[in-house]
Amino acid sequence: MNKQLLKIIKIGGNVINDEIALTSFLKDFASVEGPKILVHGGGKKATDVSSAMGLVPQMINGRRVTDEATVEVVTMVYAGLLNKKIVAQLQQFNCNALGLSGADGNCILAHKRIVNDVDYGFAGDVDAINTDFINVLLQNNVTPIFCAITHDKKGQLLNTNADTIVSEVAIGMSKLYDTELNFVFELKGVLKSIEDKNSVISHINQVTYKELIDNGIIADGMLPKIHNCFNALEKGVGKVKIGDASLVKNNNKLYTTLSLK
Amino acid sequence: MNKQLLKIIKIGGNVINDEIALTSFLKDFASVEGPKILVHGGGKKATDVSSAMGLVPQMINGRRVTDEATVEVVTMVYAGLLNKKIVAQLQQFNCNALGLSGADGNCILAHKRIVNDVDYGFAGDVDAINTDFINVLLQNNVTPIFCAITHDKKGQLLNTNADTIVSEVAIGMSKLYDTELNFVFELKGVLKSIEDKNSVISHINQVTYKELIDNGIIADGMLPKIHNCFNALEKGVGKVKIGDASLVKNNNKLYTTLSLK
Repeated sequence: MNKQLLKIIKIGGNVINDEIALTSFLKDFASVEGPKILVHGGGKKATDVSSAMGLVPQMINGRRVTDEATVEVVTMVYAGLLNKKIVAQLQQFNCNALGLSGADGNCILAHKRIVNDVDYGFAGDVDAINTDFINVLLQNNVTPIFCAITHDKKGQLLNTNADTIVSEVAIGMSKLYDTELNFVFELKGVLKSIEDKNSVISHINQVTYKELIDNGIIADGMLPKIHNCFNALEKGVGKVKIGDASLVKNNNKLYTTLSLK
Repeated sequence: MNKQLLKIIKIGGNVINDEIALTSFLKDFASVEGPKILVHGGGKKATDVSSAMGLVPQMINGRRVTDEATVEVVTMVYAGLLNKKIVAQLQQFNCNALGLSGADGNCILAHKRIVNDVDYGFAGDVDAINTDFINVLLQNNVTPIFCAITHDKKGQLLNTNADTIVSEVAIGMSKLYDTELNFVFELKGVLKSIEDKNSVISHINQVTYKELIDNGIIADGMLPKIHNCFNALEKGVGKVKIGDASLVKNNNKLYTTLSLK
């Protein structure tokens, strides 16, 4: 039986930090037909608010540690300001958006990252997605807008990686829908050469993926991103696309598609 | 035909500002049987964050003006921090809570307060409640938790009086449910004498209401509160109770009930 297509789209800091770019993206997102889900990352506003409140970022091995004051700030900024501004704008564009943290409707259950060598504080690793309730929203023509905050069902909110959230949501919803995962970032796609911003690799499958790693074309920050994508594909997501904010437009041709075969 | 009972409960700053009192209240709220809705006010955290960020409150005639920086802070604190902390705690107590601003699911549509003599900035007056969608949540055993932020469907978030929100939600839901509105505040109920905190008037109807005003027993800050309650009763709300945080407990006997007759 053919399942209905569900698009799950992630936007990051590069879109969120630029008000004009964000509005333009949200207008395009609102016009995407059929059921859809948006996941947004943080952006620089959390850093601005932290600094304004006199908090000093705690870093261990170059990674940010989420102490109690920080989880309060990211909850304010991600679940409060950014999420509600996005929802209000989408409502303006006639998309019936509803903002969610993982605590709301118990949509995303997580646990505080296990402490081995380093205690990253209130950072969450995802355990379960409440696909039934997310489906209730979609079936009522409501568009879920997730921020990157989860909870542990013990009363604690947890700062969680937005790439992980979007993948886990897409994997979960694949039980009920034919899923397409879109990653919107600062480039037009995965590039053959970082010097040529138009050298987009149009398609990557599991075979060419390994070749691209061996040739050093997929490297550094791109490696965990693509690994995350293939993990989603292996766990039931139908298709993954990576590109810039024009990705959600129907007429956009320049992006990277990832699939198993 | 008998309609199902729906309880709509409002908590204010006195409960929100005290973490222990809030947790205790939420434990009681979670155990309330049947469909229920919570509306929460702001509390002092918004003032703390405003001060930390160096914002100076703008006042006209003793009333706070919501400028753009202020609407950002209240959105962060009310819709972000407070709302998500409440939701996460209720999830811990096995109440499937879902936090909402008026923008989410277009639940509460408002307009920016009309400027006559004074421009109160981004303050919202309520126009419409999306009762059908709120009912979808209730029918799925989800408990809506509203903060006092609404939107105008033109992309603008608006700071809105929590007493007004809870009344309008209760009035709207009265089409579908037999509604009971509970106002939780710092006193045990409406008092005969402000000096005696136990002198609770157990019942007020439209006739005794007028007598209590004439006798000066209902005065000052209590006047608009009680006026708001009778407005709700006139527009279809079945019953109103006013009391302290123990109001939601089944065994509590000391509170004020308001009804038309």
